Amino acid sequence: MPSSFEPRDPDWEGKVRRSFDLQGVMTLFGARLGELSPGHVEILAPFDDRLSQQHGFFHAGITATLADSACGYSAFTLFPPGTMVLTTEFKINLLAPADGELLRASARVIKPGRTLTVAEADVYVTKGDTQTHCARMLASVICREGPGL
Amino acid sequence: MPSSFEPRDPDWEGKVRRSFDLQGVMTLFGARLGELSPGHVEILAPFDDRLSQQHGFFHAGITATLADSACGYSAFTLFPPGTMVLTTEFKINLLAPADGELLRASARVIKPGRTLTVAEADVYVTKGDTQTHCARMLASVICREGPGL
Amino acid sequence: MPSSFEPRDPDWEGKVRRSFDLQGVMTLFGARLGELSPGHVEILAPFDDRLSQQHGFFHAGITATLADSACGYSAFTLFPPGTMVLTTEFKINLLAPADGELLRASARVIKPGRTLTVAEADVYVTKGDTQTHCARMLASVICREGPGL
Amino acid sequence: MPSSFEPRDPDWEGKVRRSFDLQGVMTLFGARLGELSPGHVEILAPFDDRLSQQHGFFHAGITATLADSACGYSAFTLFPPGTMVLTTEFKINLLAPADGELLRASARVIKPGRTLTVAEADVYVTKGDTQTHCARMLASVICREGPGL
Repeated sequence: MPSSFEPRDPDWEGKVRRSFDLQGVMTLFGARLGELSPGHVEILAPFDDRLSQQHGFFHAGITATLADSACGYSAFTLFPPGTMVLTTEFKINLLAPADGELLRASARVIKPGRTLTVAEADVYVTKGDTQTHCARMLASVICREGPGL
Repeated sequence: MPSSFEPRDPDWEGKVRRSFDLQGVMTLFGARLGELSPGHVEILAPFDDRLSQQHGFFHAGITATLADSACGYSAFTLFPPGTMVLTTEFKINLLAPADGELLRASARVIKPGRTLTVAEADVYVTKGDTQTHCARMLASVICREGPGL
Repeated sequence: MPSSFEPRDPDWEGKVRRSFDLQGVMTLFGARLGELSPGHVEILAPFDDRLSQQHGFFHAGITATLADSACGYSAFTLFPPGTMVLTTEFKINLLAPADGELLRASARVIKPGRTLTVAEADVYVTKGDTQTHCARMLASVICREGPGL
Repeated sequence: MPSSFEPRDPDWEGKVRRSFDLQGVMTLFGARLGELSPGHVEILAPFDDRLSQQHGFFHAGITATLADSACGYSAFTLFPPGTMVLTTEFKINLLAPADGELLRASARVIKPGRTLTVAEADVYVTKGDTQTHCARMLASVICREGPGL
């Protein structure tokens, strides 16, 4: 995704990667970063029975976790040095069962702000040759003074 | 919490417990069911570094996962036999960092319905002697014909 | 509703009433303030064909307008002097058709904060002797320096 | 906006226009329909002091009302004959003050469904030569048997 955002921190990519590596939950899920550009972050995770809900699909909470981190990091790419990112709220609509081998959350900033940034994410699930749009998130994240992680 | 809801399935408690045991993600999180009554379900999970975000707290996605399952199951207690529950959307406001040893999501049905049920959940985190209200969720779940799980 | 909140502005009630009178939309809707205490505000509006959707009920947008103002003002009662209130986001679940003569939005603060405050509102519609719970809102409002209105 | 949706009702446009004319609130707001295609509906309203909040901008509830109707009608264009549309929930993020002469809500269907349809809307405010993106909505609407309005 081409981006028209100008990052205010030359280390925008490095700090996202370091912060991601500190999220125990991403290691637990076997998740990895995908595309990364100012205002845009992707996170992918392969299916595992341990991530399932009762019908054998990805749990909606896993979908939400990937989308939330992707939204937060898409905003974080635009934050100045010496700040940190916290989610204040998000809403997610589940559009189809997350039934497949791979989950991909793709987030982008809708409205950057000094205090609050609004981002959205689409989540896709891949099963064989088919990719299904399974969720949409709309989130607010806040920029706080912090350790840059 | 006393409840004024009349379950339509005499096996309301059994089916929630069986469905919960099938959620791989609950085993992964070390989560367990707490209070259980018609229209009301609690889920608890102890802290583990594997559930953390980058600052060492429970990841918002974990908070959301517990609250989502609790909302879904609070509705499921009121569903008739031969149906299943799916979340269609939820919104969560993160009220405080989920910094502590134990996370507890407590959900209750606001409005039962034949097709859609609206439920809400409060999430609390316990740190030493202090319990903090760290999140509020408002969710819609749908009742579909299904295997009763 | 008894309240445990301590207002930081001795003029908390006066500023809410003055701000309410400045909302052209409340005059347009024939709306009025009801109960008012620190962290809690009610707004009522009588039915009028001009407020209807296509089936003759209150439009969901009217329900949302009352609930949004009630949430904002419930937070505003707790703000310090020299500030103003802006809604950053809200979510509303419509629980039943708003079919009746009188709409009442009752809001309360869930979590006050220096920057962001989270509030919720329940909306009830009265038809003859029956009162129906027709909506629930969960909202974030922000405190900004401003003219105290 | 080009659309890839196939309407199931040949009268998709007529029924939206008739339903819109029945919404008392749209007359009250001086609102009118703009672009209209399968899965896409725009609603516009000029500023009027009667639609203001306390700082003289469009009230967030007005923004939400336009966006809600636009989302509902974007879904309604895809519904079969003999049905009606009801909003079950929506979430709106206010991105900038709605300060200007004209408000335009542009909605599109994200995911059509037999029971539930998910739609989103962007709202723009025009002030002189400048157009500002002032809100984003994410909504669920339900298809019910009904009078086709």
